Order: sequence, then C-alpha cells, then structure tokens
Amino acid sequence: MFSPKRVLVLAPHTDDAELGCGGTMARWIDEGAEMFTAVFSIAETSLPPGSPRDRLKSECNEALDQIGVPTENRFIYNYPVRELGYHRQEVLEHMVGLSSEVRPDVILTPSGADLHQDHNVVFQESLRAFRHLTIMGYELPWNHITFSTHAFVVLSEDHLLRKWKALMKYDSQIELQRPYFRYEAIEAMARVRGMQVRSVYAEAYEMIRIRL
Amino acid sequence: MFSPKRVLVLAPHTDDAELGCGGTMARWIDEGAEMFTAVFSIAETSLPPGSPRDRLKSECNEALDQIGVPTENRFIYNYPVRELGYHRQEVLEHMVGLSSEVRPDVILTPSGADLHQDHNVVFQESLRAFRHLTIMGYELPWNHITFSTHAFVVLSEDHLLRKWKALMKYDSQIELQRPYFRYEAIEAMARVRGMQVRSVYAEAYEMIRIRL
Amino acid sequence: MFSPKRVLVLAPHTDDAELGCGGTMARWIDEGAEMFTAVFSIAETSLPPGSPRDRLKSECNEALDQIGVPTENRFIYNYPVRELGYHRQEVLEHMVGLSSEVRPDVILTPSGADLHQDHNVVFQESLRAFRHLTIMGYELPWNHITFSTHAFVVLSEDHLLRKWKALMKYDSQIELQRPYFRYEAIEAMARVRGMQVRSVYAEAYEMIRIRL
Amino acid sequence: MFSPKRVLVLAPHTDDAELGCGGTMARWIDEGAEMFTAVFSIAETSLPPGSPRDRLKSECNEALDQIGVPTENRFIYNYPVRELGYHRQEVLEHMVGLSSEVRPDVILTPSGADLHQDHNVVFQESLRAFRHLTIMGYELPWNHITFSTHAFVVLSEDHLLRKWKALMKYDSQIELQRPYFRYEAIEAMARVRGMQVRSVYAEAYEMIRIRL
Amino acid sequence: MFSPKRVLVLAPHTDDAELGCGGTMARWIDEGAEMFTAVFSIAETSLPPGSPRDRLKSECNEALDQIGVPTENRFIYNYPVRELGYHRQEVLEHMVGLSSEVRPDVILTPSGADLHQDHNVVFQESLRAFRHLTIMGYELPWNHITFSTHAFVVLSEDHLLRKWKALMKYDSQIELQRPYFRYEAIEAMARVRGMQVRSVYAEAYEMIRIRL
Amino acid sequence: MFSPKRVLVLAPHTDDAELGCGGTMARWIDEGAEMFTAVFSIAETSLPPGSPRDRLKSECNEALDQIGVPTENRFIYNYPVRELGYHRQEVLEHMVGLSSEVRPDVILTPSGADLHQDHNVVFQESLRAFRHLTIMGYELPWNHITFSTHAFVVLSEDHLLRKWKALMKYDSQIELQRPYFRYEAIEAMARVRGMQVRSVYAEAYEMIRIRL
Repeated sequence: MFSPKRVLVLAPHTDDAELGCGGTMARWIDEGAEMFTAVFSIAETSLPPGSPRDRLKSECNEALDQIGVPTENRFIYNYPVRELGYHRQEVLEHMVGLSSEVRPDVILTPSGADLHQDHNVVFQESLRAFRHLTIMGYELPWNHITFSTHAFVVLSEDHLLRKWKALMKYDSQIELQRPYFRYEAIEAMARVRGMQVRSVYAEAYEMIRIRL
Repeated sequence: MFSPKRVLVLAPHTDDAELGCGGTMARWIDEGAEMFTAVFSIAETSLPPGSPRDRLKSECNEALDQIGVPTENRFIYNYPVRELGYHRQEVLEHMVGLSSEVRPDVILTPSGADLHQDHNVVFQESLRAFRHLTIMGYELPWNHITFSTHAFVVLSEDHLLRKWKALMKYDSQIELQRPYFRYEAIEAMARVRGMQVRSVYAEAYEMIRIRL
Repeated sequence: MFSPKRVLVLAPHTDDAELGCGGTMARWIDEGAEMFTAVFSIAETSLPPGSPRDRLKSECNEALDQIGVPTENRFIYNYPVRELGYHRQEVLEHMVGLSSEVRPDVILTPSGADLHQDHNVVFQESLRAFRHLTIMGYELPWNHITFSTHAFVVLSEDHLLRKWKALMKYDSQIELQRPYFRYEAIEAMARVRGMQVRSVYAEAYEMIRIRL
Repeated sequence: MFSPKRVLVLAPHTDDAELGCGGTMARWIDEGAEMFTAVFSIAETSLPPGSPRDRLKSECNEALDQIGVPTENRFIYNYPVRELGYHRQEVLEHMVGLSSEVRPDVILTPSGADLHQDHNVVFQESLRAFRHLTIMGYELPWNHITFSTHAFVVLSEDHLLRKWKALMKYDSQIELQRPYFRYEAIEAMARVRGMQVRSVYAEAYEMIRIRL
Repeated sequence: MFSPKRVLVLAPHTDDAELGCGGTMARWIDEGAEMFTAVFSIAETSLPPGSPRDRLKSECNEALDQIGVPTENRFIYNYPVRELGYHRQEVLEHMVGLSSEVRPDVILTPSGADLHQDHNVVFQESLRAFRHLTIMGYELPWNHITFSTHAFVVLSEDHLLRKWKALMKYDSQIELQRPYFRYEAIEAMARVRGMQVRSVYAEAYEMIRIRL
Repeated sequence: MFSPKRVLVLAPHTDDAELGCGGTMARWIDEGAEMFTAVFSIAETSLPPGSPRDRLKSECNEALDQIGVPTENRFIYNYPVRELGYHRQEVLEHMVGLSSEVRPDVILTPSGADLHQDHNVVFQESLRAFRHLTIMGYELPWNHITFSTHAFVVLSEDHLLRKWKALMKYDSQIELQRPYFRYEAIEAMARVRGMQVRSVYAEAYEMIRIRL
C-alpha cells in the first residue's frame, strides 16, 4: 500500500541507520525500493583500543551488504564524532547534493527528540535540505527522553532477523558491550511497537511530514 | 507510492466529507481504491425554509455520485445535528460495525482540532473504533483555531474540479450563502496547502497515525 | 531515594493496574509503602463464554495477593465496562471518599493519552479528586498512539517476575489470548523502558504532577 | 481596537516582511502607526545572472515605498544569505540598538516554525532582544511544516492590493519565477486566513507574547 | 493601544471572574469598555452553614458594583455547582444568545488548562459560541497543573486594589477561609505576572485566539 | 518521601542557582543531601562601575555559605557572560567530568523555556551530559514567556528565608536594582507556586526526566 520508490537514510554515524530503521530498509528493499544511505561520521574514536581507525567503516559496509543496500548507493563521509555542529553548512551541502543526485521520495533521519548533538544536526539540516518531501524520524530510545510515535512500519520476522544480522557485523561495538546491540533489546523494541498496531513486530517513527 | 485499497470517510454531517477531503477521495478512486462514506447526520434543521427534510440527503447522494463513491458504499444515518454527543455509544457501535463490514485500511475523519461538538464526537469515537489503523484528520478551517499539517495529499486540477462539482450539488447550502462553498474558497485552500509541498494543489491532514 | 508512604492505584478494570504498574507496586511494597487499589469495573462481559460473572473479580484478588496488596486495601466497584462515562460523578465521589479514607501521597492512574473511554474517565476524574498530589499516568501501549515518558521506575528482575506471576492469575484473559499477557510482551516493555534510563528493566510513566 | 503606535518588522532578507506581513503593515500605517523595518541580508547571491549585486536592496526600497514605510525608518544590513548563524551576536546587538532607538511596542518577526536557518536566527534573537514586548511571528507557508495560528489581522481589499503592489517591485524574484509571488498565491493565503475569523481577508500570526 | 469596546466575561460560578480577571475588568472599564458578566452558577451549596441560599448572588452583585459592571450588564444563571456538564447544551444556548444580544469583541473565559469540571464546560462551549472572536483564558492557579502565559494585561496599583475590594465582598468565602482570597495571594499573583513583562503588576492569560 | 542523596545544581552565572532553586537547596541540605554547585560565568561585566572584576565570585561564595553548600563542593568557572555558546563543547566536558567526580542523582538546571542564550546552552548540554538521571529545570520568570510546572518542591518559611538571606549577599545586583532581588518578588513566586499544591510556599520545576 505504501511503496516508496527511492529512499535515502541519513545516519549521523555508522550503525545509526541499522539500529533505527534496519528492518524498514530490509522490507522496502524487498518491496522494490531503491535504497540509499549517507553516513556522516565513521566515529574513529568510538573504537576498542588497538582498532584500525576505519574499522567502523568496514563494519558498516558489511552491515549494509546484509541489509541489501547496493555498494554504489552508499555515501560515507568522515566528519569527527560529536563535532558535526562545526560542519553544519557542509552537512547541509552534502544533503542538497544528494537531493539532486538521488532524487529520493522518502527520507529517514534521526528524530527531533534525539539528544545527541550530531543527531540533532542531521535532523535539523535534513528539514532544510528536503523541504517538500516525506521525512520520518527513526527511534533510538537510549537517546530520547520521550518520543512521538505517529507512524509505524510493520515488520516480518525475516525483516527483524535481517536487521539483527546487520548489527552483528559491528564487532567493535559488541566488544564495547553496547547494551542496545543485544538481541533481546532489538526484539523488545520491535515487539513493543508491534503491539501498538496489532502486529508482532514494527519500527516506530516520528512523522515529520508525509507527502502523498 | 501510497495507494490505499479500502478507504472509509467519516462525515459528521452531509457535506463535511466533500469539503474536507473531496479531492483526496477523487484521486484515490482514480487510483483504484474502493471508497466508502459514512454520514452521521443529514442535518434536517440546517436547511432554507420550505425545504423537504431530507433535502441534504439527496444532495449528498448527488455529490457522492460526482466524486465517484458507489451507491452501495454509502452509509447515511440520521442523528439530529449538534446532538451526536448524546448518541456517542451508538456512533461508536456503527463504526465498530463498519470496521468489520468494510475492512478499511485508511480512515479519514474530522481532526482533533475541530471545534464543532459533533465533529469532535466523530473524531474521538473513530480513535476508539479503529485503534490500529491509519487515521488522518481532514481540515475545515472555519472550525479550527489552529491546525497541525503533517500530511499532504497532492491533487491535480481535475481532482480539485471534481471536488468543486460535488460541492455544487449542495444547492441548499449555496442558497444559505455558506462562504466556504464559493469556488475561490475551495481553490484558495488547495493552493495554500500545495505551496507547502511544492505542488499547485493539495489537501492537508492532521496525521493521527499511519500504519505502513 | 523516592519512597512513597501511601500509594493509591486507580484501575478502570481488573488487570489494568497489574499491566500498567505491577512492577512498581511490587517494588514500593518491598520498600515499605502501604499499597491501595481501586478497581471500577470487573468487566463482566469481557469473559470467555460460560464463565461466572464475577470471574475477573476472583482473578484480580489472586493477582493482588501475588503482588502483595493487603485484602483490606482493595476497593472493587462494579460499573459496567465501557459505560464509566455515564457514572462520571459517582466515580469522582468514590475517589473523593478514598482521598480522605486512604490519605495517599502518590496516585497511579491511566495516562492522559489512553484512548479507552473508561480509562479516560478515570484519568480525568483523578485529576479533579487529587488536585494537589503526585499523580503518575501508567503505560498501556496498545491503548496509546503516542506516550510521554518523563518518569521511570527502575525494576529488578524480581519485581518483573512478580508482575508476571500476578498477570498469570488472569486465566480468563489468557484463554481469550490477549497478546499483552504473554511473557515476551511484558518483558519487552520493561526492557525498552529500562534502556532509556540505563537499567535492565523499568516501567515508564507520564508525569502529571509531582509534589516533593 | 488594537492600534500599535510603533511597529518594528524584522526581515531576515529583503521581501520576507512584505510576503509575511505586508497587509498588516499597510493597515497599521493607515491607522496611524509609525512603521519601522530592519532587513538583515540583501541576498546578493539570490539574483538572476547579470544583476547588480544590490538589486534586491533597490527593489526592497521601492516595495517599502509602496507599503508606506518612511525612508528614514528603514535599517538595511548586508549579512551574507544563509550565514546569519555565524553573525548571531551582531544580529542581536543590532536589535538591542533598535530597541532603544525605535522604542517599538510591537515586533513582527519570522515564526518559531520557520525552517530557514536565517529566519530561525532572527526569530531566536528577537525573543532575547525584546524580552518584554509584544512579538508576533508571521507566516511564510513554504517554510513551515505546520504553523500555529492564534492571532489574525483582518485586511481590507485595499491592504491586500498594497501588499501585492509592493511585491510586484521585486522584479528579480519574479524573473526567478518564485511561485509565492503570484497574485493567486498571495490572495489564497489571505482568503484562507480570513475564513478562520469570518472576514474576507486576513494575515495569520503565531502569537509569541502579547503585552496589553 | 488595545482598547476592547465590549467585553463579555464568562464565570462558571460567582467569584471566578473577579479572581481570574478582576484587575483587567477594572482597567478596561476605566478605558471606556462596556463590560458584561455572565455567571452560570451561584453555587448554593458552597456556603457556610446557615447561609441564605442566594448569598453568593448578593455578594457577587456587590463585587461587580465595586469593579464597575453596570447592573443591567449582569446575567446570573442558577445551574447547580459541579453539574454544568449535564446542562452543556443550555450553557451553549445562553452563550449564543449573549453573542447576539451583547455583540462582544473580547471574551474572557476559564482557560483550557482548568481542571474544574464546570470551568471546563464553560471553556469548551465558549470556543463554540464565539467561534470567530478574541478569546482569552484567565488564570486560577489552584485549578491548573500548568498554564500557558502568552498574553499579559498590565495593571496599576489602583486596578489591583479594585480587584481586592471586590473580592472582599465575598464574606461567605472568607468565612470558609479560602486561601486565595487573602491579600497576599492576590498580590503575589499580580506581581509574578508583572515580572514577566517588566511591570509591577499584571494578569496573565492563555491566548486562545486574537482577532485584530 | 523524596530525599536525593547527591544533588548537582548547574548555574550559568553566579546568582542563577540561588534565584531559581535556593529554597530547594536549603531544604535538601537540611534533609541530609550532599549539595554541589557549578557556576559557568562570574559575569565580570554585569557589575556596577568601579567593582573588582571578581566581585560576583565573592558574593556567590557568601551566598552559598548562607545556603549551606560546602566550600569544596563549589565549581566556579569563568567563561564570559553571553558567550557560553562559543564554549559549548568545553561546558559539556566540564559536565561530563562532574558526572564522574560528583556522581549526582539529581540535576537542577535552567529550564528548556529559558530565553537567555547562556541558560539555553547549560540546559542543552546538561541533557547530553546526564543522559539517564533525574533532571529538573528551575524557574526564572523574567526569562520565560511560558513555563511548564509539572514538579513542585514544598518549602517551609525557614527555607524561603535562607534563600532570601543568600540573595542579600549579592550587593552588586542590589546596587543595580534588579527587581527580582526584592523580598516581595521572591516571596510572591514562592506563594504562587505553593498555592498550586496546597502549601504556603514552594518552588516549581519543569520536570525533564525523573528516574525513581
């Protein structure tokens, strides 16, 4: 019923896209959407000691393989983590460039409720760059005090598993014992959101604007 | 991209559906949706002197012909105008019945910002009856102080004209010189909402919940 | 750090208290609070065919045993389900009576976002009856479109299990296959809310007012 | 009934004042208000190829002539477009200066819902500079997702025409085919807002604070 | 600068108008406004034992004398306290009648945040009856959890004293030791609201809609 | 009932803590809490002519003596007033350092409604630094248009007096005749907030998040 044709996912850092909307990406790819991902930081300082600096970039590529985003549809920039605020204008210009290059009809971006400073920059600039398109804000509960759930994407068990397998490529974060990389956490989120729309699993979104 | 299959429009009174979402109804019918309309009051007392009591019912049927809602998809009840609040439970039960009979995937209903007491009853009960479905609240600017526009349905000139022709069937209201039945008013609304999403014409909605 | 002395939980129907705040009740009882529960409907018509009419009342008593609410602290009324709206004044008067009898310092009540008509009545009347006390609105995700989480009560695994065991007393609802009575659902909720405050499990609340 | 004596309009760029509140300016001038306008950028890069760099400044002066703002009441600064964020402190200091020089009783400024980065800077700094005055946020629908309309200024046809004639001085923007410079767009806006307060034409505002 | 010509104050019970907006009434009368007051309940059961049933009506008349509301501009109905909800349609009809009889340009009414059930009825029906007029919601802090202060009316010491003298006519409520009838309480409110707009005293309002 | 163990108060400038939450600090110290204060600017330019540059630092130390904050629990930085926005990352790093050094369970910070640019920086960075703790936003009415009061701390007359005595140490601000340093202003605030929770005096807070 809702089949976006060209979807652009905006991720402040590697792993944000998979955590926030990996299941939706998997589903829409299955339904024929062309899927694009832009990552603004490979977070070279959020790694276990001794890691190669671009370790997260490699993991991200493996994760996107798992979800099914074609290699040529990935745009991975390397701004320093927690400093996107100093590169606000450049971030906006990348987005304006992607807007004409990718011609997306749906944008997935961090939500307006996200407390992380880099996520907030991506959120705000995406409102400016994609001023007349559908924009949905994905959920990362450890970053929100509260979250407005006006949109839901129903997921099958297969979509959830694909999200999970993608996340398992992030060995560096698993070594760092991020609690939200555990299967129970991923499944719990999907189950709670599913309950709200009478399905088993779902991902929830802040509906910023939908253009039908 | 968004093609609802079965749409149920809830109208407190004859003419509310056409005014609030007539263009959307026309467009989605063209795109293959099965369209249903439930009207809760034929407003027997909102007529010019000397009119037959069911004049609005006849006009409504002609208007829905114009839009293209099949005769068998119309559910027209006759609760007294401004008194739906005393029939809240019955209104809810009609909706629960329609839910299983029509099996809609999208509900169009008055918005939560609508000040009219009957509209408010239909809004509230629709949230209860269709607790897990997509629900969009349509715009009737003379009834709102403010209105939240998170969803837009783009219209062609043909959809707008079809809305306008449907409204022209309401001779009784034109006799009563309702200002919002004038072509300029209808077009102005569509044009303003179009401007917000870089199209010529659109109808705006409060996005209550979308289940994708 | 926060140890309420006398807590009154308001449940529109049997099972709402346990579902929404069973873990919190267990924890605060452990920490020495005196716990009271008022139930406004025993939902005689929400039962599997052939059940005794007061089956939910018996199950509720067993569940409250499990949580640890003393028998003499239970107030179980029998208004018909979905009709609390017609008994609004009586509901308020019960609450006013409980206010002077129980002298609570914290009220747990359905949230303002709850769509169920009976829940909404209990929410609204509790604001009136307890006009100067701490009031927290509990979460029942299948009844909300969105939910504001400004307060969190951290739970241990034991509190969660106690909530779960209490819910298992509701055989009638398990027979009816309510999905939110499954262990996975209960645990998923607690885990998601825990993630937001860096604990394993928690229950979230709409913070209506806190008087410290 | 409401007759401001000294009104200061804050425009991020030339043309924002006329588009957002040109009709109100015309009306209040007719009613005896002293009208002041501050423009922060003459947008030297938003011009058709081959234009003189200060073309928008000249057009702005002609437009303000049309509306009736005296020459000595215009304050036109020249910060680069889209970069007001880097001059936030200077913008604030200009406003603080204007506050003591102009001693306004009403401020018209971009609304808090405006997505454009420069508009947002002017909005935020105006809250700081005019901390105890009446502040109203004007509407530019192509820049908002949603807009809160708690205040309305009723316009006569003459006020609307004066707004229109002022806008017609912006040849550069007409050459660039900005859709919101078309007469239909201007009239549609005024008509929709008029409908909400039972008048033919109006301009709507976000009411930030009114000091009566 | 803002001089309403005809003001209608809606009071659910005797004393609400004086408490919520007595200073504003005094000021606008001084500035030439014609002032009208409608009271929906004389609260026959909110009296000290042994009082004549219409004691509050007499006190209200003395209070309105003090403020300066002409006798012929008072409309005092006698619905039972806490039961306006059962007379919603009649309340609305009184308002519709007042609308054409009084032809007000400004309505002062309880705010949308007011928890008292009767206040809520008057608020909601006033939105319906005066659908295109300026409506401001007055502040009664003991009835709100939170309150939105977008409008302020500055008061002189004389207006405050006139409000205070009017309240002193309510002997019955003073006997009942209502804390908000004490001078310190009245002055504290006015002082806090004054601080927000750099004046000594003010009354604050929720700005529901202003039509300029 | 609510007894925080370790409280960290964040003050953009000397005097903000005492003005916003001096009574709460006094009460919680009496109840055994360990109290910490971080001040980000000693506002060297907000002084009467001829003052020593660190005059506010000395006054602040005397004020904190009065309230009862131990000398070793004070962290006084010296960023220039109105320029915290240029030191956002450093402010955040101080907070992260305090988080591990102080291990607070409750944070008191300026509210999200505070218009002052420095206050806004402290508010935003505190959300980031203390992402899983209880955070309450204190009230400074001259800096807010509107303010959300979901939390109240009840004060005795003694707590209020202690707040007042602390403020009296700020001779420099009294010389500058800040109106909110007058006893009537301080008392009025406490009295209005007390009225909302049926006590004589209270301080109100925006409840950002509470973790119980």
